[in-house]
Amino acid sequence: MRRLRMGMVGGGQGAFIGAVHRMAAALDGQFEFVAGALSSTPDKARSSGLALGLSEHRSYPSWQAMLEGELRLPADERIDLVSIVTPNHLHYPVAHAFASAGFHVVCDKPLVHTSEQAQNLISVVQQTGVVFGVTYNYTGYPMVREARERIRRGDLGEIRKVIVEYNQGWLASQLEATGHKQADWRTDPERSGIAGAVGDIGSHAENLVSTVTGLELEAICADLTTFVPGRALDDDASMLLRFTNGARGLLWCSQIEIGAENDLRLRVFGTRGSLSWRQEDPDTLELQQEGEPRQLLRRGNAYLSASAQAATRLPAGHPEAFIEAFANVYRGVAETVLARLENRTPDPLIADFPTLADGARGVHFIEKAVESGQTSQKWTPARWLPPA
Amino acid sequence: MRRLRMGMVGGGQGAFIGAVHRMAAALDGQFEFVAGALSSTPDKARSSGLALGLSEHRSYPSWQAMLEGELRLPADERIDLVSIVTPNHLHYPVAHAFASAGFHVVCDKPLVHTSEQAQNLISVVQQTGVVFGVTYNYTGYPMVREARERIRRGDLGEIRKVIVEYNQGWLASQLEATGHKQADWRTDPERSGIAGAVGDIGSHAENLVSTVTGLELEAICADLTTFVPGRALDDDASMLLRFTNGARGLLWCSQIEIGAENDLRLRVFGTRGSLSWRQEDPDTLELQQEGEPRQLLRRGNAYLSASAQAATRLPAGHPEAFIEAFANVYRGVAETVLARLENRTPDPLIADFPTLADGARGVHFIEKAVESGQTSQKWTPARWLPPA
Amino acid sequence: MRRLRMGMVGGGQGAFIGAVHRMAAALDGQFEFVAGALSSTPDKARSSGLALGLSEHRSYPSWQAMLEGELRLPADERIDLVSIVTPNHLHYPVAHAFASAGFHVVCDKPLVHTSEQAQNLISVVQQTGVVFGVTYNYTGYPMVREARERIRRGDLGEIRKVIVEYNQGWLASQLEATGHKQADWRTDPERSGIAGAVGDIGSHAENLVSTVTGLELEAICADLTTFVPGRALDDDASMLLRFTNGARGLLWCSQIEIGAENDLRLRVFGTRGSLSWRQEDPDTLELQQEGEPRQLLRRGNAYLSASAQAATRLPAGHPEAFIEAFANVYRGVAETVLARLENRTPDPLIADFPTLADGARGVHFIEKAVESGQTSQKWTPARWLPPA
Amino acid sequence: MRRLRMGMVGGGQGAFIGAVHRMAAALDGQFEFVAGALSSTPDKARSSGLALGLSEHRSYPSWQAMLEGELRLPADERIDLVSIVTPNHLHYPVAHAFASAGFHVVCDKPLVHTSEQAQNLISVVQQTGVVFGVTYNYTGYPMVREARERIRRGDLGEIRKVIVEYNQGWLASQLEATGHKQADWRTDPERSGIAGAVGDIGSHAENLVSTVTGLELEAICADLTTFVPGRALDDDASMLLRFTNGARGLLWCSQIEIGAENDLRLRVFGTRGSLSWRQEDPDTLELQQEGEPRQLLRRGNAYLSASAQAATRLPAGHPEAFIEAFANVYRGVAETVLARLENRTPDPLIADFPTLADGARGVHFIEKAVESGQTSQKWTPARWLPPA
Repeated sequence: MRRLRMGMVGGGQGAFIGAVHRMAAALDGQFEFVAGALSSTPDKARSSGLALGLSEHRSYPSWQAMLEGELRLPADERIDLVSIVTPNHLHYPVAHAFASAGFHVVCDKPLVHTSEQAQNLISVVQQTGVVFGVTYNYTGYPMVREARERIRRGDLGEIRKVIVEYNQGWLASQLEATGHKQADWRTDPERSGIAGAVGDIGSHAENLVSTVTGLELEAICADLTTFVPGRALDDDASMLLRFTNGARGLLWCSQIEIGAENDLRLRVFGTRGSLSWRQEDPDTLELQQEGEPRQLLRRGNAYLSASAQAATRLPAGHPEAFIEAFANVYRGVAETVLARLENRTPDPLIADFPTLADGARGVHFIEKAVESGQTSQKWTPARWLPPA
Repeated sequence: MRRLRMGMVGGGQGAFIGAVHRMAAALDGQFEFVAGALSSTPDKARSSGLALGLSEHRSYPSWQAMLEGELRLPADERIDLVSIVTPNHLHYPVAHAFASAGFHVVCDKPLVHTSEQAQNLISVVQQTGVVFGVTYNYTGYPMVREARERIRRGDLGEIRKVIVEYNQGWLASQLEATGHKQADWRTDPERSGIAGAVGDIGSHAENLVSTVTGLELEAICADLTTFVPGRALDDDASMLLRFTNGARGLLWCSQIEIGAENDLRLRVFGTRGSLSWRQEDPDTLELQQEGEPRQLLRRGNAYLSASAQAATRLPAGHPEAFIEAFANVYRGVAETVLARLENRTPDPLIADFPTLADGARGVHFIEKAVESGQTSQKWTPARWLPPA
Repeated sequence: MRRLRMGMVGGGQGAFIGAVHRMAAALDGQFEFVAGALSSTPDKARSSGLALGLSEHRSYPSWQAMLEGELRLPADERIDLVSIVTPNHLHYPVAHAFASAGFHVVCDKPLVHTSEQAQNLISVVQQTGVVFGVTYNYTGYPMVREARERIRRGDLGEIRKVIVEYNQGWLASQLEATGHKQADWRTDPERSGIAGAVGDIGSHAENLVSTVTGLELEAICADLTTFVPGRALDDDASMLLRFTNGARGLLWCSQIEIGAENDLRLRVFGTRGSLSWRQEDPDTLELQQEGEPRQLLRRGNAYLSASAQAATRLPAGHPEAFIEAFANVYRGVAETVLARLENRTPDPLIADFPTLADGARGVHFIEKAVESGQTSQKWTPARWLPPA
Repeated sequence: MRRLRMGMVGGGQGAFIGAVHRMAAALDGQFEFVAGALSSTPDKARSSGLALGLSEHRSYPSWQAMLEGELRLPADERIDLVSIVTPNHLHYPVAHAFASAGFHVVCDKPLVHTSEQAQNLISVVQQTGVVFGVTYNYTGYPMVREARERIRRGDLGEIRKVIVEYNQGWLASQLEATGHKQADWRTDPERSGIAGAVGDIGSHAENLVSTVTGLELEAICADLTTFVPGRALDDDASMLLRFTNGARGLLWCSQIEIGAENDLRLRVFGTRGSLSWRQEDPDTLELQQEGEPRQLLRRGNAYLSASAQAATRLPAGHPEAFIEAFANVYRGVAETVLARLENRTPDPLIADFPTLADGARGVHFIEKAVESGQTSQKWTPARWLPPA
C-alpha cells in the first residue's frame, strides 16, 4: 500500500475544521500530509505549515503558489489530493483550479455559493475525471449507514414522514463581535454566502435526509429568522417539506438554541416502521417495527448490515465518534483513488462518500430555502435535477 | 371537609377517558361518584352505572334524564359537578345544559366544535357563575408548572423559539375499520369535528405552549395531511408558528408515527436560557442557563417553586405520572368549589387548572390550523382575543 | 360489586406512607375508607380521622379501641380489612390482633422485627384464614411482572447473575436530629428494628429479586456501615450473594448516596439473555437476547404478557407510576377478598400480590444480612425455608 | 516539532488492540510508525509489517530481532519508543529488554503477571530513566479528568462510597473454543496470567477508581466465578472494598453479562455531593451537589477544568470517544519525551498519563482479588505500597 500525498488549503492556526480534516486523514494511515497553504495571510500560512511539520518549501504562502509549486514537482512527489478547508467563498476558486489541474479534491461544505458554480465544477470534474469528495461527514457514521440500508431493504415500508433537526446554541449572542474567528466568517455574507444557519448546518440536515431516505424534495415552505441584532444572515430557520413520493417533513436548524451543542437528529416514519438517530449519541440507532418492541441497534454488532460494519473500526461498546465518521469520508476517497492507482475496482462498502452531486444538491437546497424565506407563497418548488 | 358529589356523562364500558376521569377524581378522596349517564345507548348507560356501583335510580339512561333527575333531588343530595367525557360533539349540548342549570362542569377537550359554541358557553358561565374546568391535563404535571414559573420569573430571558411536538402512532393504519371504539369516533367528522390529529392532540400542544410560555400566537402556516387511505380527517399536521412578541415556533402532531406512544414534548429557548420537557418522562425538567451545565430539575425536590411543589403528592424518586397530573385538574376544581362552599378564598397554588378560556382558545387554534391547511398563502393570522 | 370497608392504623398527619395507601386503595374505587386509628397519640388520631372525613365514632383514639369498636358493629358495617401503616414495631401487635379477630390485613414492610414474630403471624393466619397482603409495592409494577414472566418462560435461560441496587440519599446527613418524622423512627432501633437501610429498602431489593427470578438465596456476605455520626443503625450496606442454583449476585442499599432519590434497579443475566429495570423509569423493561438488538419493552403494548397487561390501567405512553403499582397490591387483595364474598375463584392475574410468606422471607433476609455484617467469616448461610 | 519514531511489538493481522494503538498514535501526528515485530510468528510478523507500510528491513520477524536491529541503526533513525501490544505474558520480557536498552515504552495492561516482575521493571526504569506509559486508556477521557479535578477541589466533600462496574458479555459462551483469537489468549492462564475478567477489565476498574478518587484500598472481599464450562479463569467477579479513609466500595467485572458491550461505569459519593460517569457515554459527567439540581457536565464547555479542556480536541457536541481518549495517553507520553528532547518542562496538563506505578498497583490488585477469591476469610488486606 502506498500512502496518498495530501495538501491542504486553509486550516491554519485557530481554525477548527482543518484540524479535524488532518486527524480524519491521519487515522487510518492512508495519507501523508506533505503540503499546505494554510491561511490566506502568507506569513501565517507559512508558519502554520512549519508548526505542523511541513517542509520549508511546501509551506506555501498561498493556494496559487501551492498549485504552481506542486505542478512543478515530479509526479511521484506531487500531492495526489487537496483538502479544501477554507471559509466557503474560497471553495469554488480553489476546487476549480486544483480539479482542473488534475488533482483529486476533498472539499468542505457547503460546496460553493451558487448552483452555477456547482455546475461549473461538475463540468470540470467530468472533463478531468478527478475524484471529488464533499465532507458531509455525518453520513459517515456507521449507524447512519445502517439507517440507509434498513430503508433500502424496506424495513420501514413506504416513507411517510421525516423530521430532521439541527440544534446549536453557540451563536445565541453576537459572538462575531468578540473577534471569534469561526463566528466571524460564518455570519459574513461575503464569505459565508446567502445563508447563515441554513448553509452551515441546514445543509447537513438536507444531506442526511437525502442520503438516508433517498427521497426527493418537491417543495419547501421556510421561515428564516435573524434573532441576534446586528447580524446579516439567518441564525434560525424552520421549514415544512414535501417530497415527490407524497411524504411530508419538518426541517429546522438553529444556532440560537441555548444549551444545544451540535444536536443533529433524524426521525423517519414509514408505513411499517420507523427509525431515529441522534448525532450526539451516534453509536445507537433506534428501530421500530409496527407492533414490536423498540430495538436499539448498536454499532459493532454482527446483526448489522455489511455497510455499517464496513464503516466501523472498534468492537461494540468502545465508542466511535465524530472523527471516525469524518475519517470514513477520507477512507472512501482513498479507496477510490487507490483503486485507480492499483487498477482495480474499488470496494463499494468502503468507497462510500458524499460526492459532487451531494454538494450541488446542497447548494440548490440553500438557494430554495432562502427563496422560500422571502416569499409569501406557501410552497416554493425545490426539486433538484441531477446534472446530465 | 365534605366530599363533592360528582356525576358523569359518557365513560361507559369500553371507554378510555371516562375511567381516567374517575381515577383522577378518586385519588384525593374529594369526590364521591354518585350519578351517571355513561353511554348514549340507554341500556349500556344503565348497566355501566350499576357495574360501577351507582345506585339504580342514579344510573340514568341519558344525560337529559340525569339533568332532570338530579334537579329533582334535594340540594344536599344533588350532584355538585358533572364530568363530560363523551365524544366531542356532545360536549357542547351537555355542558350548555348543565352549566345553565347551575352545575359545575369538568369537560374534556377539545371544548366544542366551533368558536361560536365556545362563546355561547362563556356567556352561560358568565351568567350562572359555575366553575368550569377543561381537562388539558398535561399542564397539571408539576414539572410543567415549574417550567411556567421559571419562564415567568425570567430565567430564560425573552422567548425566541418554541418547539412543541405531539407524536403518536396508533392510527398508522385504518384502525377505525376494525371497530376500535376510540379510533372510530376520532376519525369521524360528525363526532370529532373539523380536525383529526389537530383537534385530538395538536390542541394539547397549543395549550401546553400557551400555558407555559404565556406567548400569544400571531400567525400559523400549517400543512395537514391524511396519510391513511379512507380516512376523512387529518392524521398528521406540521406547522410553523409566529408569536406576537416576535418569537418563532414549530408545532406538529401526528398519529401515524409508528413507535411513538404518547410523546408530547416541549422545548423553549430564550435569550438567556432554555428548557425542555417530555410527557413520557414527566418528573424531569431540563433547564439550561447560558454558559452553565445543563440542570435536571426533578419533581419532589425542595429547590422547586411553590407551584410545582403544590402539585406533588410523593417524595422525589417515587414517580408520579398521568393520573396524578390529571387529578391536579380535579383538585383545582374541587378547591375552587369548596372555597365557595366554605366562603373562603381558594388557595391559588391549588386552584390552578385550565379554564373555559383555555378551551375557547383551543377551539380557535383548531379552526385556524385547518384554515391554514387549506390555503396557499403562507401565513394565516391566528391571534386569539379573549372574550370580553 | 360491593366496596370493601377499610380501616387504617397509623398514617395520620405528617405521615407519608399512610397517604399512599389511601390513594392506592381509592384509585380503583374498590375500597371505602371508614375507620381509623391514625396515630399513637389519641388526640392526633382523632383529629386526623376527622380531617380525612371519617365519622366521629370511627375516628378511634387507638388501634385497640378500633379493634374493639369495629367488633361491636354489625357485620355489614364492620371493616373488612385493616391497613397497617405504622412504624415497624407496631406491625406485629396490630397485625396479630386484627388477624386473630378475623379481619383481612394489608401490612407495610418490613413485616415484623423477628422471624419468630413472623412465624406467629403465619400460625394465626393459618388458623383464621384471613387474607394478608404485604406492601412490597415495587413488584406491583407491570414491567416487573413482565420481567418475572420472561424469566419463567425461559427467555433468559438459566440465571447466572443478579445485580440489585437501591440507592437513596435522603439520610446523607443527620436528618433525624432536625425532627424529621420519617427519619426519626427509621433510625431508631426501638421502632425500626435491628436494621436501618437494610430493613427499610434492602428488604424491597430482596423481594424484587426473589419475585422476579424465583431464585433462592444460599449465602450472604455483607458489609453494613453507618456513615452518619450519631446514628445507631446502618445507613448503607453492600452484599455479595450466592443462590442455590449457583447464580451469583450483588445487592446494595444506601441512604447516603447524595443525589439518589429512590433509585431501585434490577439486572438479571442468564445463559441466553438478560433484562434490566429501573423503578424511576418504571414503564420500560430492557430485554436482551444473545446476538440480537436490545429491546425496550414498554407498558401498555399488546406484545406483553397477560400478567403485565392485567396490571395496567392506561394505554402505552400515558405513564403509570408509583401509586398505580401500589394500587395493584390493593387490587390483588380486593380481588381475593371479593372472590370469597362472591364464592368464586379469584382471577390469578389480578390476585397477584406479596403475601405473608414474602413478609417472613424478608425478615429472615434482614436477620441474615445483619448477622453477616457482624462476622469475619465470608459467607453466612441465608437459605430460607418456607413455613410448613 | 519533530515526530517521534515508534516501533510496535504485537498487533499484527487479526489483533484488535494493536490497531487501536496505531490509530491513537497517529491521531495527533506526533508519531511516525517505522518499525515492528507484529506477531510471534515470524512470517506473519513480516507480512503484517509490510501490509502496514513498514519498510522491508524494519518489518522484523521477532521482537529480539527488532531490538537488535534498531540498536544497530544511527540514533537519528532508531525508534524513540516501543509500543507493546502483545498478549500479557510477553509484556514483561519485551518491556524489560527495551527499557533496559534505553527505549521509551508504552505497554498495554495489565502490566505484567506478578508484583515481582513489576518491581523489576520499576528498578530498570529507575536506572535507565526511560519514559514508561501504561494504557489504562479510560482515564484519558476528558470527563474522567473532570471527575478527578472535582474531587480534588473538594466538590464532593469526604468520599464515603464508590461503585465501579465493568460489564461485558462477549464471553458468555465458550468463544475460545471457536478459534476466536481475542478470547483464546485471554482465557489461557499461560498467556493471560492468574486472572481472567479481573485482569482484563477489573484492573481498568481499579485504575479508574484510584485515579479519580485518589483513595487507597485497604481490604478486598471477592467472589470470583467461572460460569462457562471448560474455562480455566474467572469470567465474573464481585468485590466489596474498604478504603483506608473509611470509605466503602463495590467493584465488579463480568464478561458473561449478555447484552453488556463495554460498560464501564463509576459512581462516587461524598459528604457533600456525588458524581457518575459511564464509558459508553463518555462526553457527559453527572454531578450532584447536595440539595441542588443534578448537573450534566459536557465535554468541550468553558465551565470545565483546565485538565478536562486540555484533554479535548473538538467543540462540545462533536462527540469524542475511545480512540481520542486512548490518544491522550500517547500524547502525554509524547509531551514528556519531547520535553526532554527540547530540554523543557513538560506541560503538566498534557503530560498526564498512567505510569509504571499505576501498572504495578494494578498487578497488586489482581493478586489480592484472586487471593481473596480463594479464602473463606471475609477481608483480605489489599493495601499497596508504592515502590521506594
